[in-house]
Amino acid sequence: MKPLSPLDNAILFMERRAQPMHVGALCLLRPPPDAPPDFVLQLSERLRRSAAAVPPFNRRLASRFGIRFWEESPDFDLAQHFVHLALPRPGRIRELLAMISRVHAAHLDRAYPLWRVYLIEGLEDGRIALYAKIHHAMADGVTGIRLLTLSMAADPDASRALPPPWEMCAPKKQRRSLPVPAPALRGIDAMRALAREGIGGVRPVLARMAQTLRDQRAGHPDCVGSLQAPPSIFNQPISSSRRFAAQSYSAARIKAIARRFDTTSNDVVLAICGAALRRYLLELGRLPERPLIAAVPVSTSRQERDSGNEIAFALSHLGTHIADPRKRLRAIKACMDYNKSVLRSLAPAQLLAYEGLMFAPGVFNLLTGVSRRRSIVNLVISYVPGPRRRLYWQGCELEGLYPVSLIVDSVALNITLVARHDALDFGLLGCRKTLPHLQRLLEFLGDSIAELEAAGQT
Amino acid sequence: MKPLSPLDNAILFMERRAQPMHVGALCLLRPPPDAPPDFVLQLSERLRRSAAAVPPFNRRLASRFGIRFWEESPDFDLAQHFVHLALPRPGRIRELLAMISRVHAAHLDRAYPLWRVYLIEGLEDGRIALYAKIHHAMADGVTGIRLLTLSMAADPDASRALPPPWEMCAPKKQRRSLPVPAPALRGIDAMRALAREGIGGVRPVLARMAQTLRDQRAGHPDCVGSLQAPPSIFNQPISSSRRFAAQSYSAARIKAIARRFDTTSNDVVLAICGAALRRYLLELGRLPERPLIAAVPVSTSRQERDSGNEIAFALSHLGTHIADPRKRLRAIKACMDYNKSVLRSLAPAQLLAYEGLMFAPGVFNLLTGVSRRRSIVNLVISYVPGPRRRLYWQGCELEGLYPVSLIVDSVALNITLVARHDALDFGLLGCRKTLPHLQRLLEFLGDSIAELEAAGQT
Repeated sequence: MKPLSPLDNAILFMERRAQPMHVGALCLLRPPPDAPPDFVLQLSERLRRSAAAVPPFNRRLASRFGIRFWEESPDFDLAQHFVHLALPRPGRIRELLAMISRVHAAHLDRAYPLWRVYLIEGLEDGRIALYAKIHHAMADGVTGIRLLTLSMAADPDASRALPPPWEMCAPKKQRRSLPVPAPALRGIDAMRALAREGIGGVRPVLARMAQTLRDQRAGHPDCVGSLQAPPSIFNQPISSSRRFAAQSYSAARIKAIARRFDTTSNDVVLAICGAALRRYLLELGRLPERPLIAAVPVSTSRQERDSGNEIAFALSHLGTHIADPRKRLRAIKACMDYNKSVLRSLAPAQLLAYEGLMFAPGVFNLLTGVSRRRSIVNLVISYVPGPRRRLYWQGCELEGLYPVSLIVDSVALNITLVARHDALDFGLLGCRKTLPHLQRLLEFLGDSIAELEAAGQT
Repeated sequence: MKPLSPLDNAILFMERRAQPMHVGALCLLRPPPDAPPDFVLQLSERLRRSAAAVPPFNRRLASRFGIRFWEESPDFDLAQHFVHLALPRPGRIRELLAMISRVHAAHLDRAYPLWRVYLIEGLEDGRIALYAKIHHAMADGVTGIRLLTLSMAADPDASRALPPPWEMCAPKKQRRSLPVPAPALRGIDAMRALAREGIGGVRPVLARMAQTLRDQRAGHPDCVGSLQAPPSIFNQPISSSRRFAAQSYSAARIKAIARRFDTTSNDVVLAICGAALRRYLLELGRLPERPLIAAVPVSTSRQERDSGNEIAFALSHLGTHIADPRKRLRAIKACMDYNKSVLRSLAPAQLLAYEGLMFAPGVFNLLTGVSRRRSIVNLVISYVPGPRRRLYWQGCELEGLYPVSLIVDSVALNITLVARHDALDFGLLGCRKTLPHLQRLLEFLGDSIAELEAAGQT
């Protein structure tokens, strides 16, 4: 018996019919060249023979006297957690994404351990897919992806000897200061940190907060506050249907653009997201005059490198009001530099507290659902560090590892990316009812990369 | 704008995370002998080109000032409602039933019209399946099956010219006195009938009620009251996972048994259900000493025939305390004869009122969820009249039409059957968590038919 943390309780509390609180990941895998025609069936049968699930995979929710805790499931039933699916013909990526959209929209059953893994066959190009979902109260996106890649190996043959993810010993629980898909959730932990710090430790935080407010009031162009997000189509109550879109982009191309413009890959990613969103909203005739504000990851590493490990969330505009790609990137870089200078001036615990105050209105909204048409951010852009080398799962090469995050009322779009050794795998999750043709954003992201490359040539 | 009826409002009110209130049907279809290999893909593309949906298929829920009503959906989106699926290999009926179990467990999105149709390919025997779900607030099981068969024809070629179900003009709404999957729901309408009747019309109902209570107190062996259901594994809170099992049995065999024992097909169906449930519970070591009580359909037609049209619900025991198949059938027949004599002594409106009083504790429970471990019935057995001749859909012969009903807290099993021209198609829906190995009931049903046939020989 292990009582739930306040954050996990809050996550369960936030779960509603149209707002399931699980996160997922989609792996695209290429079977070995010598795979027999019934490769997937054999694999499925082998996985189904798995006897055991280790913690946390064998734990289900229970409650006594109003207190929730995790307990070992007395009648663990793998058939509830491992599912073999097939794509309908013609088996394009399009059919796969439509299937993931539907499957991701469904709630997990709280009577069982809160996860499910789907093995999917039937892609026309011979690849297979693995989609896993896990409740956010069990794991955040980073932990989820780590649990998944634990069952992969750099050597194809060695990978076949590895047990399925649910039989792998779980890594030690990560501090929740790692990025979670809905960054405002971090605010809940941050609030606790704030309380722990006491007034002494909080004084620098409050001073920094006051400075931020002063900068904002003085119209500092690079300072984004909690109330600046313009109304947009992303900020509406969500339906329970989802649209998932996913694509990989070359990490080398993003890095080359960053070098050319003397900025970071992170800034370039924000700039291409901003460009794609601008075009998407222009086509719908719904582009706000003021720039979109996103909750974005910021590296807080004191070394000026993309370490991808020390990450906080901050508010940034996405330059959607700027037509010129160079100017847009520069404006985003300035905003992010401002964010970094603020965050790096604070000690780690203070940083969490500062985030808590920044995201407080969002946390309030998430927990109460009071204002479903108003949000402190227009969307969330999130980042999950992925494997830094080529990996294999059950002999199949991992060719894509796409995060399938979660959305909440009044924030109907989430863009999360996984950085692998040679690719950035983008996963876009939106409310199907609110956001038409979400998959067009993939095309616009690709166009935006080309546009920045062209701008760098001149 | 069409306000919802009190019954439909009650159905929406009863919907909970683990208790979705939609009903479904699974059709097994045999493609024509000359079907090309991409028959299903072509069919799927043709259906997807459908432009329009007629009422009620284009209506979604809306609410203003706390009043719910149906409104025409301004942005009808067929891709939300028509889904092409494929079974994983090996594509047995087992894989199909597992898929339907999962798909039926998921809620419909209240932001869209509350129905979805799935076209399923990949059965190893070359057949295809059509699974449709519709919210109970839009249609009950009978109407749902009727809407589906409207798009079928007795001639294979003529059937190809028919539009998909959602383009067919809906038949006039049936009176809700037709059987619905959870018969206690009828109690809601019955209560209203009771109120309309006033004290004058209600006097015979109350007199009959008093007689029933007297019979019950006097230990009349054939009279089943509202508080007789023994505690059983079926009467527990349900999870949100489902197990669906389905099989067809020969109508001719059932009728031959009925003739041999001078009873009705309906009684024979209850007897084989009772026998199968007895064996199922014996194997689990969970057979209650007192007989299981089911809400069962009763023909109220004054002609002593299985008309299948005038049907009420009553409480019957299922003879699960009796080991001998002949004695079991006779005991069930006596109980059903008692029920018929009661119900036929009442005028139709009074009958509805009588039902209302019988099922009142169940209605109270359904609406309040007060007692999730106690129920007036152990399970529900329901009946839907099906097509009386061979039918074709899009050129494919209909070989099975299985109802996929709904279950509620404290009634974790529903057995519904569709009577077609030559077969009884059984659909069993249970809570996956509560009822292990539900599919074994199919085998036991078959055994029970053979057992009664053998008993009839001697």
